[in-house]
Amino acid sequence: MNASAPHNPAADGTAQIGVTGLGVMGRNLARNFARNGYTVAVHNRSPHRTHELMKEYGDEGAFVPAETAQEFVAALEKPRRLMIMVQAGPATDAVIDEFAALMEPGDMIIDGGNAHFADTRRREAALRDKGLHFVGAGVSGGEEGALNGPSIMPGGSAESYAVLGPMFESVSAKVDGEPCSTHIGTDGAGHFVKMVHNGIEYADMQLIAEAYDLLRQVGGYTPAEIAEIFQRWNEGRLGSYLIEITAEVLGHTDAETGKAFVDIVTDAAGQKGTGRWTVQTALELGSPVTAIAQATFARASSSQGDLRAAYRGLPGGTTPPLSRTEADRFTAQVEQALYASKVIAYDQGWKMIQDAATEFGWSIDLAAVAGIWRGGCIIRASFLDRIRAAYTADPGLVSLLGEERFAQEIGDAQVPWREVVASAARRGIPVPAFSAALSHYDTLRADRLPAALLQGQRDFFGAHTYGRTDRTGMFHTHWSRPGRPETTA
Amino acid sequence: MNASAPHNPAADGTAQIGVTGLGVMGRNLARNFARNGYTVAVHNRSPHRTHELMKEYGDEGAFVPAETAQEFVAALEKPRRLMIMVQAGPATDAVIDEFAALMEPGDMIIDGGNAHFADTRRREAALRDKGLHFVGAGVSGGEEGALNGPSIMPGGSAESYAVLGPMFESVSAKVDGEPCSTHIGTDGAGHFVKMVHNGIEYADMQLIAEAYDLLRQVGGYTPAEIAEIFQRWNEGRLGSYLIEITAEVLGHTDAETGKAFVDIVTDAAGQKGTGRWTVQTALELGSPVTAIAQATFARASSSQGDLRAAYRGLPGGTTPPLSRTEADRFTAQVEQALYASKVIAYDQGWKMIQDAATEFGWSIDLAAVAGIWRGGCIIRASFLDRIRAAYTADPGLVSLLGEERFAQEIGDAQVPWREVVASAARRGIPVPAFSAALSHYDTLRADRLPAALLQGQRDFFGAHTYGRTDRTGMFHTHWSRPGRPETTA
Repeated sequence: MNASAPHNPAADGTAQIGVTGLGVMGRNLARNFARNGYTVAVHNRSPHRTHELMKEYGDEGAFVPAETAQEFVAALEKPRRLMIMVQAGPATDAVIDEFAALMEPGDMIIDGGNAHFADTRRREAALRDKGLHFVGAGVSGGEEGALNGPSIMPGGSAESYAVLGPMFESVSAKVDGEPCSTHIGTDGAGHFVKMVHNGIEYADMQLIAEAYDLLRQVGGYTPAEIAEIFQRWNEGRLGSYLIEITAEVLGHTDAETGKAFVDIVTDAAGQKGTGRWTVQTALELGSPVTAIAQATFARASSSQGDLRAAYRGLPGGTTPPLSRTEADRFTAQVEQALYASKVIAYDQGWKMIQDAATEFGWSIDLAAVAGIWRGGCIIRASFLDRIRAAYTADPGLVSLLGEERFAQEIGDAQVPWREVVASAARRGIPVPAFSAALSHYDTLRADRLPAALLQGQRDFFGAHTYGRTDRTGMFHTHWSRPGRPETTA
Repeated sequence: MNASAPHNPAADGTAQIGVTGLGVMGRNLARNFARNGYTVAVHNRSPHRTHELMKEYGDEGAFVPAETAQEFVAALEKPRRLMIMVQAGPATDAVIDEFAALMEPGDMIIDGGNAHFADTRRREAALRDKGLHFVGAGVSGGEEGALNGPSIMPGGSAESYAVLGPMFESVSAKVDGEPCSTHIGTDGAGHFVKMVHNGIEYADMQLIAEAYDLLRQVGGYTPAEIAEIFQRWNEGRLGSYLIEITAEVLGHTDAETGKAFVDIVTDAAGQKGTGRWTVQTALELGSPVTAIAQATFARASSSQGDLRAAYRGLPGGTTPPLSRTEADRFTAQVEQALYASKVIAYDQGWKMIQDAATEFGWSIDLAAVAGIWRGGCIIRASFLDRIRAAYTADPGLVSLLGEERFAQEIGDAQVPWREVVASAARRGIPVPAFSAALSHYDTLRADRLPAALLQGQRDFFGAHTYGRTDRTGMFHTHWSRPGRPETTA
């Protein structure tokens, strides 16, 4: 097939799916569909990317290149399935408007970009009014996943998943033969769950970074030695893609300088916004995703150059370095702390999904979410089998710690976990995510919280009223004459 | 004057200010203006509140009651100054629209409610197009402050502050004869700074609550004993309204049960949204307000009943109780930890204001902000004199810790601060805000952060590129063939 050849009218109406937006993600997804036997219409605003795809990968499967929007829509089998892979935001709206005008009731538009779930809810409602199905589908796994099998999180109508599901499942990653795609829930549920995936990813990465920092600064290990520790951990219950690549990164030597790669990299972390969205949304929902929040802020702090310059050199902890025996023992404690904190971070993410399901009326299978994250995506981990099993056994599980084995593990981990956080505090190593996770655990297991004092303060200065432990109703104390409590409405 | 009497036409055009929305805040502000010698037009959507005000407080000063919007506007001296004290959100927009239609170029509308600064920016721009001045004014101090002297944070044009400033300064709180009102900056700057005030208030309250919890659970003191400790602290560098009322609340005995008041209050903290706004906005700005974030989430956690039920009873720390001598020593450590954490929380708030000033083009006098928070508002504290002095001496100060005395104090506090956080971790007392403050300190003073590892991970799985410490540019490593780094645009 030749990209510069005129469009072949014989191909009209035969493509099972169309992909518009042939950046690296769109191109790789299109190739993935084609390699899986689907006839794929491909389109890009400027046609050179379409030509490029046809020239370089046209022989991988049945592609139908389209130069214009009209040609592209005409190439699709009905009901049409048109997947948009463009930048989130106004660009997505523009492309939706362009294609929706050319489509018919029953057709489906899939947004595979990183849209905010609130935008997806708005778009779904608008297209539903026109009889079109709009499917916001989270796609995780980066370029490589898009080509060889991503984790796919589609929202939208059940009717649309009945048609699209088999296609998504076919191109998705597989774990033990099971596809990493499931219908998450209606309207924006798919993009919501993708957002939380990324929030958990932020927390997981920060926890790993803190573990590395502790091993380096307290344990006294070299990056190469820490790479070996992570390799070992990757064989156990921490086994995951992120632990695996951490070992790779830490084991890598910079070819130019001969130094450890991690030592020549600027220590200012970037972000693309999904962690921020997760925390902002969690604040609306009242879901305490503190490990994700601390991870997001840790990235921001690392990039606050003037603030770092102002604080640099201020005094820190003074405890002496560890002996090698002590360091080995410390390493085992760090593994426990990392595991316990990770369970908390994931628990925070799952609870946030539950809170959102209640808020937005979604019916989300929490076990299935764990299932499709076992492959294709960044947080894929053996540990997700366990989470899936926990929610399968009890779909209404409020917390992972309600499951016996997790509770047991956290119980076993807690002394070393507490020692690691205490040690970091004493020695001056920043552990924002480790300590947020521990505080979360201690906050939620507390019989009584000092929130009671807050309620007293709020009633004192703002007459905000308080509840009583011994009967229902809301009360206000006349603080200038505190003998006289007053019941309020 | 009689509220049911017909409107007196002689009063037309003589009121120096009008207040519409006569809930408790609006009523008290109107009375405050009248008590300070201003002629005050008063109006409420349903006139019974106007009648009530006239009946109960009409003799406190020169009020001009108005039944209709037209009468109300006609009662005002030109250029008109009309203050809106209604619920934030759509109600505010409705009232603005109603009155803006009746006003003339040069007139001023002041929103004294708790509007989101982004709404204030939008409204200011819209009214500016019509030649009207819109002043979003943060008013802090609750009912009592509104009546006897609040802290006032007006945004909007300098031109409007030239007229309104003397009036605001007249009714505001005074500290050492200085009024607690200053022109914060253009458009939404006033409401922004009020929002950050409330965010800091959340952090301060949570830190106090954690200190109480530690004294109670680790120190073994009774609420009455802790009330005495807070009273003593109130005499020193922690001296502040919040510490003062904490002592009051903790010293209070419930009349019905004879128990400590704090023990009969439900330990689920409420919130009205400004803490949440602060953190959400900080995430947009990249300002690491981690103590405020943890305080906001701590309130959310306390209200997550099902989650608390799921975690309750999970194992905690096991260290033995303190002797009385140890407890006294611990109390002194907690004071140090509370003070150091408080400095960090305030520093986070000030930096957020600086970041916003850069983002939104505001010129904000950071010393003046400290100045007007010394009286009237919830976080009023002797400590703010010090902050004011620091920013007066160096208006470009990036951090309070850049000032010698604060740096010295934090240096002196850090060993006990670290001990308290370590102790809490070991003993299972939740200290989310204390540990967030300590991690913030340790993050920002670090020579190297593990953010470098994060950048390596991000480049590995997402080709996000990284900077190098030894030269400029952004780089990508071909991780499958890591000997070949590639410079990218």
